[in-house]
Amino acid sequence: MSVDDKFSRLGTDNAPGQEVRQKTGDLHNLMRGAALAGTPVDFSHGDVDAFTPTPGSFEVFADGVRAGGRQAYTEYRGAAAIREDLAGKLAAFTGAPVDAADGMILTPGTQGALFLAIASTVGRGDKVAVVQPDYFANRKLVEFFEGEMMPVRLDYMKDGADAGLDLGQLEDAFRRGAKVFVFSNPNNPVGVVYSEAEIRQIAELAGRYGVTVIADQLYSRLRYSDASYTHLRASGIDPDKIVTIMGPSKTESLSGYRLGVAFGAPKLVGRMEKLQAIVSLRAGGYSQTVLQTWFSEPEGWIDERTRLHKAIRDDLLEALRAVEGVAARTPQAGSYLFPRLPDMAVTPSDFVRILRLQAGVVVTPGTEFSPHSATSVRLNFSQDHAAAVGAVERMVELVARYRA
Amino acid sequence: MSVDDKFSRLGTDNAPGQEVRQKTGDLHNLMRGAALAGTPVDFSHGDVDAFTPTPGSFEVFADGVRAGGRQAYTEYRGAAAIREDLAGKLAAFTGAPVDAADGMILTPGTQGALFLAIASTVGRGDKVAVVQPDYFANRKLVEFFEGEMMPVRLDYMKDGADAGLDLGQLEDAFRRGAKVFVFSNPNNPVGVVYSEAEIRQIAELAGRYGVTVIADQLYSRLRYSDASYTHLRASGIDPDKIVTIMGPSKTESLSGYRLGVAFGAPKLVGRMEKLQAIVSLRAGGYSQTVLQTWFSEPEGWIDERTRLHKAIRDDLLEALRAVEGVAARTPQAGSYLFPRLPDMAVTPSDFVRILRLQAGVVVTPGTEFSPHSATSVRLNFSQDHAAAVGAVERMVELVARYRA
Repeated sequence: MSVDDKFSRLGTDNAPGQEVRQKTGDLHNLMRGAALAGTPVDFSHGDVDAFTPTPGSFEVFADGVRAGGRQAYTEYRGAAAIREDLAGKLAAFTGAPVDAADGMILTPGTQGALFLAIASTVGRGDKVAVVQPDYFANRKLVEFFEGEMMPVRLDYMKDGADAGLDLGQLEDAFRRGAKVFVFSNPNNPVGVVYSEAEIRQIAELAGRYGVTVIADQLYSRLRYSDASYTHLRASGIDPDKIVTIMGPSKTESLSGYRLGVAFGAPKLVGRMEKLQAIVSLRAGGYSQTVLQTWFSEPEGWIDERTRLHKAIRDDLLEALRAVEGVAARTPQAGSYLFPRLPDMAVTPSDFVRILRLQAGVVVTPGTEFSPHSATSVRLNFSQDHAAAVGAVERMVELVARYRA
Repeated sequence: MSVDDKFSRLGTDNAPGQEVRQKTGDLHNLMRGAALAGTPVDFSHGDVDAFTPTPGSFEVFADGVRAGGRQAYTEYRGAAAIREDLAGKLAAFTGAPVDAADGMILTPGTQGALFLAIASTVGRGDKVAVVQPDYFANRKLVEFFEGEMMPVRLDYMKDGADAGLDLGQLEDAFRRGAKVFVFSNPNNPVGVVYSEAEIRQIAELAGRYGVTVIADQLYSRLRYSDASYTHLRASGIDPDKIVTIMGPSKTESLSGYRLGVAFGAPKLVGRMEKLQAIVSLRAGGYSQTVLQTWFSEPEGWIDERTRLHKAIRDDLLEALRAVEGVAARTPQAGSYLFPRLPDMAVTPSDFVRILRLQAGVVVTPGTEFSPHSATSVRLNFSQDHAAAVGAVERMVELVARYRA
């Protein structure tokens, strides 16, 4: 593939946060009625002014600056002492050992970890099983490295004990030669958590077919029910065949510090470090210190944050489900809602842009996550509660206005 | 090329800062005499405790944190206001217009900019002209994207008005189909500045053969003589065929904030942003604010910093040149010295490791920069003055001890 081709496939016009670069074009010809007043809400990402960063994070960063050179220039995989501290916490959280010396790398955001993990496993023509819908970067990364996508369906509208992964299709992809499987748990954009049965099945199939799994568990701390969360890395999978990715950007609102971590197979982590050396050198040196606050938040802080998010989730679900033709599965974790909208008189893509221009409401189009979810939109509901409810009310009003 | 092959070629064992991961193996069998006492000096990178970050940089970072969500989540190419401010300063510095909206991207370090620039121009089998010696990541990046290296010699030991680029070889590479030319000016590791004649010739040849040029000008602010510095982007080159890279990590000691900037051809910058969206999302949001201090340092601060570096340079050169068989060109800019050492009784690679273990002196082996500079080593002399002199004295003593 030529560089031209590669980049023409790598679109970001609809990526979260990039809406400001969109041209509005002839959209005004399609618009009906007047604009709706209300606090603008950008559901494309969380509002870290509404849910602020972990208490003490800035002070710890300041300590990093004061530490000077030894913190500015760490090993490419991150400062040894910080990895050491984190390894214990992540082992306790996930239920399987973490090798601080050789099995862990700090990265600029979880995006950085995902990039390095895919780059370290996927080459030209390699088959990669990818869930649909799932985080849009998975697909883009596989395409960038010229891998071959093998879509595996997640039945994202069906409520039930399982997330809804089509395990038959997964095995079929593995049987037909998939070398890598990448998925997010909880799923982004749907917010469903894979059941223990599903996770055990994934581990079993990966073992049987020798598939390497990249498990993106970015949202695994923000969970709404007592339903169990099963960590794939502690579910009997070959430790040399899995890399797990997490980070404090979402639940902990530390995105501004750009921090992520990947842990798992030393061989793959070693590759990731080699690559990071020419991609970005390291996660910001001073920022790395902020990881000391992670899994060490004040007593009850995560519980309270979870409670507040659950309350927003419930109010938004209620507002959305009151509308005929709107359906939404209940997220079990994370802060994403992925409602399906009814048929419209405008295209889904135009509706998303109209929503921004007429109602001050930014959502991410469903096509970013799967070609089969064009009528869904993703909302990150980590927002000011009242503003989010108001924004969804305006969205509901525009759904009525543009309904087919 | 398989992923295995790709990563087996991507070595970082000798990369600056990674020495801590080296195994010492059987080195003790080769060692002669006792260890030398003295303050350890890591010449693989600058000491930001000796030359501290720009005054006020931390306070500006704190402003970024206080700004909250709008600064945590910027466009992938960086906050518009910061780009706007920087564009004016970079246009004034380089002598050609900078397009803040479409022709500039903020990146996690200049390494981030270099990665994105190479990724956006070099595909499998594309020919890329690379200077030898030059910054080691250039070669590694070209190889990672499966480009074909076309080495162009820099006669790095010859003093003179020109840097010493073999322009005949450069034209030959262009004639044989080089699509991209990447080079650092001032050169890393040698510290020489390309003359106006050389830069004009590069611009002319790039125009004639339609070659895209990536100019890494990371060190272009720290210059020791009144000799002119010629910016390629202001030397008649097609603006759609050049990307210039700079950043405040070195001269300004802001490496801990991970900041770089690339500016030039909007088409290429657009690609770089698309890619950054899946590599690391953006330069750290809060860190971006630190760029406000760049080119706005206190009056005389850069001059004083330059004066202090020049004094260290001169003392180290004097100590090195007193040794028979050691040769070193005088750096005109930056903080790198690249002396050539005499023949040793141990391999150059073992000498570098012995130097670390017996004298507490870390240098970067010449092979990182070119296969033809194995007997040279690179020293970043942005260090505590006395410690650097002491370290070079120990190095000189070991040169005598291990001389062939």
